[in-house]
Amino acid sequence: MDTLLEDIAWNSDGLLPVITQDAGSGQVLMLAWMNRQALLKTVELGEAVYWSRSRQRLWHKGEESGHVQRVKQLRLDCDGDTLLLQVEQAGGVACHTGRAHCFFRGLVDGQWTVLEPILKDPDLLYGKGRQ
Amino acid sequence: MDTLLEDIAWNSDGLLPVITQDAGSGQVLMLAWMNRQALLKTVELGEAVYWSRSRQRLWHKGEESGHVQRVKQLRLDCDGDTLLLQVEQAGGVACHTGRAHCFFRGLVDGQWTVLEPILKDPDLLYGKGRQ
Repeated sequence: MDTLLEDIAWNSDGLLPVITQDAGSGQVLMLAWMNRQALLKTVELGEAVYWSRSRQRLWHKGEESGHVQRVKQLRLDCDGDTLLLQVEQAGGVACHTGRAHCFFRGLVDGQWTVLEPILKDPDLLYGKGRQ
Repeated sequence: MDTLLEDIAWNSDGLLPVITQDAGSGQVLMLAWMNRQALLKTVELGEAVYWSRSRQRLWHKGEESGHVQRVKQLRLDCDGDTLLLQVEQAGGVACHTGRAHCFFRGLVDGQWTVLEPILKDPDLLYGKGRQ
């Protein structure tokens, strides 16, 4: 199983970027990071487990909100330094802002403009204690 | 115009990752990087201009192969540290290996396995001098 780690060009922090895409719609949901342990855990569980750079710990996506990402396919790029994770997004909400995905701002007339609605109140996703 | 740079959380190298997606099919084509100048140039030209970390220079995608990426939409994520670039890929080949996209290896039985065909001979894309 660990042979899958050997083809990967981890960066100097031992991480690689992971693009997460909705397997059904093709919508790009988010970009996150994995270390070796996160990738092995993702494969083992069949659900996305990232490395949280801000919290410096493994982050099983949906562990608080229930919005787990069930892995349908894992892809590696030509340089071996980026993963594409195709998932089924539980609850239809990938972003901590309560939106379907994280790329909700578009460049319109030179300004980043919110183009996507909030589907779920973030306070209800995480509890009031969460910023 | 430069106000669009201010909302972006550039990393310590002054870069941010850019996910490039085919605007029509939704296929994720590649991950690359931009600095401020690359982003401004991309907006100005309407074609993808990245920062090549290996060559340490601006890289107008398709400058050698003719396979430019015409920008349809630019999106910024919730943390302001990742771009999603939706493009029309000239020639239908985004990867330097001559494949439609860079994510041509999938995890099959614990092994990274080539799943996508070569559409164009890389030697013909770039000339024989290119590795």
